[in-house]
Amino acid sequence: MKACVLYSGGKDSSLMGAILQKLGYEVELVTVNFGCYPSWKPAAESASKLGFSHQVFHAENEILENAVDIILKEGYPNHGINNLHQQALILASQKYPVIADGIRRDDRVPKLETSMIQSLEDKKNVQYINLTGFGHKTIDQLSQKFFKIKKELTTIDNNSDYEIEIRYYIDKLRGDGTASSIFPEHQQSRVIGWRENE
Amino acid sequence: MKACVLYSGGKDSSLMGAILQKLGYEVELVTVNFGCYPSWKPAAESASKLGFSHQVFHAENEILENAVDIILKEGYPNHGINNLHQQALILASQKYPVIADGIRRDDRVPKLETSMIQSLEDKKNVQYINLTGFGHKTIDQLSQKFFKIKKELTTIDNNSDYEIEIRYYIDKLRGDGTASSIFPEHQQSRVIGWRENE
Repeated sequence: MKACVLYSGGKDSSLMGAILQKLGYEVELVTVNFGCYPSWKPAAESASKLGFSHQVFHAENEILENAVDIILKEGYPNHGINNLHQQALILASQKYPVIADGIRRDDRVPKLETSMIQSLEDKKNVQYINLTGFGHKTIDQLSQKFFKIKKELTTIDNNSDYEIEIRYYIDKLRGDGTASSIFPEHQQSRVIGWRENE
Repeated sequence: MKACVLYSGGKDSSLMGAILQKLGYEVELVTVNFGCYPSWKPAAESASKLGFSHQVFHAENEILENAVDIILKEGYPNHGINNLHQQALILASQKYPVIADGIRRDDRVPKLETSMIQSLEDKKNVQYINLTGFGHKTIDQLSQKFFKIKKELTTIDNNSDYEIEIRYYIDKLRGDGTASSIFPEHQQSRVIGWRENE
C-alpha cells in the first residue's frame, strides 16, 4: 500500500519514512510548498540521497498568508504552523490512503489533537501515522543508526520546514527583523544519506 | 540494543515486538504476573509461536490487591489497570534500557500521561516506546499482514491481559458475579504465528 510522509529532510520525517518502508509500505515523500520560496529543495535532495520518491505539492499562497497573519498577531509561531500542517495533511489525504509525518512524543509544534486526527481519518477515509510513540532519545539513536546526518545552522537554503517560507514572507511584509525575533537562529540535523550497513 | 515489550499475546503488543525487531532491537517479550493466577501462559505460547524470547516477571500480589481495591471502589477498571501497567513498566525498567508496550492512539486503557512517561524515562534512565503513532485501522491491517490471528471469546485460559488476574481475584473475594459486571464478555484477537511471507 502507498504511504505518503510529509517530508522536510530532517531526521524525524526521514525516520518515519524508514519505518514505513520496513513495514512494507510503498513510501513516497511529499513536501508542501506555498508558492512563496522554493524551500522544498533541501528536502528533495535528502529524499534523493535516501532513494525515496519525492514530490512537491503546491498549496495556495493564501494558506501561508493566513498562517503568517496568525503568527504576527500572536507573536509566536505555534498556531500558525499547526494550521499549515493541517492543510498539508488535508492536501496529502486527497492522493494517498496512508499519510504520515515525523511528529514525535515531545514535539510542541506541530502538534495534533486526537480529535483532529480522528476527524481527518473519518472525513478523508485515510489512515494517519506519526512518531508520537517515540521520544527524542529513541529517535536520536535510531536516526544516528540509520542515517548520515549533517548538523548545521538553519539557513534559508538548507531547510524545508514551514518556517522558511513563513520567515521569507514575514521579511517581505515587514523587512524589519520581525522574522528573526519569532524564529531565533538554531541548529538542525539534515539527513544526507543512509549509513553503509543499512 | 535489548528492548522489552510488555506482552499479552494480542495483536498490539505483538506488532510492537515486530516493529522493534525490524528496527534492529534485540526484542524480549515480558509478561508480568501478580501471583494470583498463571495468566501468562497464553502470552508465552504466542511468543513461542513468533520465535521471540519470553519471560514472566513476578510482581507482588499486593499491587494487584491495591488495583482491585480501586476497581471495586470505582466500579470500573481504568484506573486500577493503569496502576498495574505503570508498576509493570517500572519492573521492566529495572532490567532493560528500552521498554515498550502495545498502547495505541485510540486506546482508553491502559493510557499513560506524557508527564508519567517523561518521569519514567528520566528516573529510570530508560527509553519508552509505544504504538500511539498508530490508530486501530492501521494496526488491524498491519497485524493481519504479519500475523496469523485467532478471534475468539476471552476466557480465563486464552488471555494474558491484566483483566484475567483482576477477575480471578475479584471472584475469589466476592464470588457474586461482580467481575462479570465490570468486565463484560468480549471478543479478542490472539496472535498464533507469523504469516508465511514474513
